[in-house]
Amino acid sequence: MTPTIDIIRAAQQRINAHIHRTPVMTSEFINRETGAAIFFKCENFQKVGAFKARGACNAIFSLDEATARRGVVTHSSGNHGAALAWAAGLRGIKATVVVPENAPAPKKRAIEGYGATIVYCAPNILARQAAVDDLIALHGYEMIHPFDNDVVIAGQGTAAVELLEDYPELDIIIAPLGGGGLLSGTAIAAKAIKPSIKVYGGEPRGADDGARSLARGELVTEQTPKTICDGLQTTLSPRTFNYIRTHADGIGLATEENIIRAMRLTWQYAKIICEASCCPPLAAILEGTLDVNGKNVGIILTGGNVDLDKLPWVIG
Amino acid sequence: MTPTIDIIRAAQQRINAHIHRTPVMTSEFINRETGAAIFFKCENFQKVGAFKARGACNAIFSLDEATARRGVVTHSSGNHGAALAWAAGLRGIKATVVVPENAPAPKKRAIEGYGATIVYCAPNILARQAAVDDLIALHGYEMIHPFDNDVVIAGQGTAAVELLEDYPELDIIIAPLGGGGLLSGTAIAAKAIKPSIKVYGGEPRGADDGARSLARGELVTEQTPKTICDGLQTTLSPRTFNYIRTHADGIGLATEENIIRAMRLTWQYAKIICEASCCPPLAAILEGTLDVNGKNVGIILTGGNVDLDKLPWVIG
Repeated sequence: MTPTIDIIRAAQQRINAHIHRTPVMTSEFINRETGAAIFFKCENFQKVGAFKARGACNAIFSLDEATARRGVVTHSSGNHGAALAWAAGLRGIKATVVVPENAPAPKKRAIEGYGATIVYCAPNILARQAAVDDLIALHGYEMIHPFDNDVVIAGQGTAAVELLEDYPELDIIIAPLGGGGLLSGTAIAAKAIKPSIKVYGGEPRGADDGARSLARGELVTEQTPKTICDGLQTTLSPRTFNYIRTHADGIGLATEENIIRAMRLTWQYAKIICEASCCPPLAAILEGTLDVNGKNVGIILTGGNVDLDKLPWVIG
Repeated sequence: MTPTIDIIRAAQQRINAHIHRTPVMTSEFINRETGAAIFFKCENFQKVGAFKARGACNAIFSLDEATARRGVVTHSSGNHGAALAWAAGLRGIKATVVVPENAPAPKKRAIEGYGATIVYCAPNILARQAAVDDLIALHGYEMIHPFDNDVVIAGQGTAAVELLEDYPELDIIIAPLGGGGLLSGTAIAAKAIKPSIKVYGGEPRGADDGARSLARGELVTEQTPKTICDGLQTTLSPRTFNYIRTHADGIGLATEENIIRAMRLTWQYAKIICEASCCPPLAAILEGTLDVNGKNVGIILTGGNVDLDKLPWVIG
């Protein structure tokens, strides 16, 4: 069912006891650098270290009892897999996560740490889909897609609800854009709560299918991603393209250089650990592809699961 | 004047409008690792990125008008210098900071960024004192010592007041121990508010003058510090030794290995940037030199000013 603000508020009721109401942080230095008042919604402090806890939790606790007993499956390069594993553990049901062999080590450890079963596949979409299909055929698992799923999207929208409860004076909200689940939920929620608000996606130039899709007016799925934002390499689905086209106001693109610069600024001045995949929104502001001058701007910092041995500004 | 809880509360009133009431954060993973409930008082999110803002602000706003007009001077390897520069800027008075030539670059930039004048000296105590004496003789500046100063100590004690307001159920508070200003203020405040609480210092084995002083029952000042905790290399003063001996319950020592491990755990699981100098308290718990099993433990995370190009776990 297409998410509405009522459905998103129902999701909020469903997941509230399980997730953190994450804090909002600011940095005077970053405000001076950008000429705006930036409010970081710190989903890096969320359960499992990412906003994905919201959608996964909503999906798991929306399952009927018989389906839940069979278990769930998903594919994920990382945070959604960990989030689904965590949420399934809360309900005491079985989760299986299909993971590309080349996924970052800390994310694989997290999925296993939350008690899910990992099934490895070759790092391409066909292998991934085949592995999922096999598991569903064999065990009757319920697929919980990372973003092409209305119940997941409704859960992701709860971050924007909280942000606007805390800071109703926001003029703009920007979320990173990968598959489009977060941006869909954010735009649907924010526009319903405050119709005058602008909602943008921040997208790496190295994975700019979202911007190309909006520019062309139809979904573009050809993409060879070239970005350190491992959470943003996927393309939109018809569903998220439709929601974003309808509810969001545009996409700001950012180079890898500005993404790394934004990440480092956030670490250095906000003193918080965030993933590269969080950083296209601030990077797009630094790059000038989103104009936020003088505005109150909410940015959803989507996750904090970083391999501390592989920082993008450290050569070695 | 010897700080008391009333003097510390007066400091709180004096500085409240200028500083952040910093949040308290927790990590389920770190709680499991330690067998305790750890409450991190996040002074890494404080103004200038360190608790030093509290003492410096209290000192600057306690000056009479004539003294303030002449200006202030201090010596500091970093955070106190930045804090004094920042606080002097708030009041619109001149600050000069004597800095060893080998201080970390980000800390030097911060001091200059807040508008203070830097005077460089050779990295030894005699050169530093000579530089300060010259400046006082020449300009009549007021010396604001980083820790051997009751007004500064009263300011540092305000972090513990806030922490116990938020978490009155704490059994233990641990603060890093360098010159002893923070531990003095913390112990005086915490014991007055809750006499049953235990207050400990966390100290690097490579700069263990505090532990040696307490063990011997007299101040030990011979020390060749060998630790990455650049904020903790100094020795106690007679004043802070006396306060700590009277009000604190002991010192937990930690190896460099455990300090780095504690730093990395905090980054990885609490998702926050903290300096190595923050980490001896958690490191001492990991090392088993402080027993916190089953307790509610407050740890003051003293600062977040890190050179992101020189992380202790990255070889390169």
